[in-house]
Amino acid sequence: MKTLTVGLGDRSYPIYIGDGVMTADRLAAHIGGKQVMIVTNETVAPLYLEKLIAQLDGFEVDVTQLHDGEQFKTLTAIDQVIDHLLTQRHNRSTTLIALGGGVVGDITGFAASCYQRGVDFIQVPTTLLSQVDSSVGGKTGVNHRHGKNMIGAFYQPQAVLIDTSTLQSLPARELSAGLAEVVKYGLIDDPEFLDWLEANADALVSAEPSALVHAIEASCACKARVVEDDELEQGRRAILNLGHTFGHAIEGYMQYKQWLHGEAVAVGMVMAVAMSVRCGYLQPDAVERVSNLLSRMNLPVRPPVAMTPDDFMQYMAVDKKNVGGSLRLVLLQAMGDAIVTDQFDGDALVRTLIEYTTH
Amino acid sequence: MKTLTVGLGDRSYPIYIGDGVMTADRLAAHIGGKQVMIVTNETVAPLYLEKLIAQLDGFEVDVTQLHDGEQFKTLTAIDQVIDHLLTQRHNRSTTLIALGGGVVGDITGFAASCYQRGVDFIQVPTTLLSQVDSSVGGKTGVNHRHGKNMIGAFYQPQAVLIDTSTLQSLPARELSAGLAEVVKYGLIDDPEFLDWLEANADALVSAEPSALVHAIEASCACKARVVEDDELEQGRRAILNLGHTFGHAIEGYMQYKQWLHGEAVAVGMVMAVAMSVRCGYLQPDAVERVSNLLSRMNLPVRPPVAMTPDDFMQYMAVDKKNVGGSLRLVLLQAMGDAIVTDQFDGDALVRTLIEYTTH
Repeated sequence: MKTLTVGLGDRSYPIYIGDGVMTADRLAAHIGGKQVMIVTNETVAPLYLEKLIAQLDGFEVDVTQLHDGEQFKTLTAIDQVIDHLLTQRHNRSTTLIALGGGVVGDITGFAASCYQRGVDFIQVPTTLLSQVDSSVGGKTGVNHRHGKNMIGAFYQPQAVLIDTSTLQSLPARELSAGLAEVVKYGLIDDPEFLDWLEANADALVSAEPSALVHAIEASCACKARVVEDDELEQGRRAILNLGHTFGHAIEGYMQYKQWLHGEAVAVGMVMAVAMSVRCGYLQPDAVERVSNLLSRMNLPVRPPVAMTPDDFMQYMAVDKKNVGGSLRLVLLQAMGDAIVTDQFDGDALVRTLIEYTTH
Repeated sequence: MKTLTVGLGDRSYPIYIGDGVMTADRLAAHIGGKQVMIVTNETVAPLYLEKLIAQLDGFEVDVTQLHDGEQFKTLTAIDQVIDHLLTQRHNRSTTLIALGGGVVGDITGFAASCYQRGVDFIQVPTTLLSQVDSSVGGKTGVNHRHGKNMIGAFYQPQAVLIDTSTLQSLPARELSAGLAEVVKYGLIDDPEFLDWLEANADALVSAEPSALVHAIEASCACKARVVEDDELEQGRRAILNLGHTFGHAIEGYMQYKQWLHGEAVAVGMVMAVAMSVRCGYLQPDAVERVSNLLSRMNLPVRPPVAMTPDDFMQYMAVDKKNVGGSLRLVLLQAMGDAIVTDQFDGDALVRTLIEYTTH
């Protein structure tokens, strides 16, 4: 088992990574009261709920089961969790446990942040995507019909328990979607990890346990460094959004259906790299290098066929990265070195959008 | 004009109190970007909206108008504000301004806390109740059908502008409701202020400007001291809830209709004082002293006629003060000296409830 720490003063917390980290002792160490509300969904519950409850002997355990899917990540889900907390009379010393992927974690964390103005919560992410990204760093929230993640809070968990055995039952497509975020860490902050990923892409796609543990550890370590540096995303933390501005436009255009978040981010990263090449930061072969790696991970590298440059512009304009009215993009000034900038060549953006929407 | 400061490190902010404090310079000093969203309601807008907008020359100003009333303080109102922010393309550097009473302030503050995970906001409270209580201290949130203020955040404003001229148009009943919270500060933390209130009750009920300014200043100073000591209500801040556990039970029983919050708190304070007498903390004449003062302010001192002890117990059990399963009450151990305790005589509580529900 590996243990990392996200160092945020009195909001610091551990990340445990390994096979079978979800033990009674470890859970109890991070639960302050007697009451526990597990929040999960209809897909994850049959797989892991019983196993988790078995480790919570001696606590008063309730369960809220959500529908599975990004389309249910709304204020209605928050209302559902809070309704159940109130009818089961959970008080301010309760602990919520998010058992599931990123959607479950985002909903649970935001519900914890606002239930009685804040109660404890623990992340138990069960997908690769949530293990390497959304469960670490305290971004919680839900979508609004006009934009993704527009309602939420920065709210850190008490602990993150990453049980890598859950990945053995993860559908291959979701594993790949998680690998998109893993590649992101190599691109933004760790060129050696990028080399390692190219050498181990096949092992990762095959869900080889030791390769996955290393990839998760390197990803979480990178994310922890960035979050420690800029918890509230006032500057550098935005590099974690590499590919996300383009990616969110794809997800918005698709109305959050058919495409997985990681798939949209994969395309978005290719477009961000292409844009970085047009801006003169990277050599042209960077696009092929990134596309090849993502393709080997069974990820898409081009947007939906019907999307136009106007579609992109429309959805990018309401993206959170649009600060002060001017669009901000995450670009690479070298492989493994990201920057956030609104000082880019607008023509380069238009040409990139045209290039990726012409078939 | 009086200026107080709520000292909370990098979340510190000023409170300006006086006639005509709502000036362009003062507003501009606390607005970081170009965009402003004023949130107000149908009652307040005709009175002060034009005046506020006139002080915001040079900013891009939008207005969200809410329905007036505690029954609209729900997640639906949050959704309405966020919908408008998104359709008007407000970015993370926008500033929300709450123009109205406590309901408007609570909704606006919570919307600011969760829009894009947090944007700035300014409180411009227009009722006495919100000027002395809800606009100061960072408690924001909305009600849930199963309990009051159950969804929210601790989120501090950039500034509080208390324009006391707004009180000249406030209905007498609402002025009285605000005075209930003013009396609360005397009871929990300031015996000399309590004496002053008894000497100046008539001037306050008549909305005499200099009396009101002094009452507001003393109230905000008391609140600031308590909040600085315990921002997240992990202990002593709960003394601000004197009378609120009984009061919330009345409001819940009345389904937040007919009774104003301050009226319910007035009765709740009398009951808390009666309970303090039964617990041996206060002399019996304390009940009469507090009842007399509140009656002179045209406030009720007994619950709705139809309420039973069981009604109280039912609504008190889901109150936020119910931590760890045991009921916590704010009691007075002397006039001007409150404590929070779950170590009280249960029989004294039952007898107090019976006394106040027998006619």
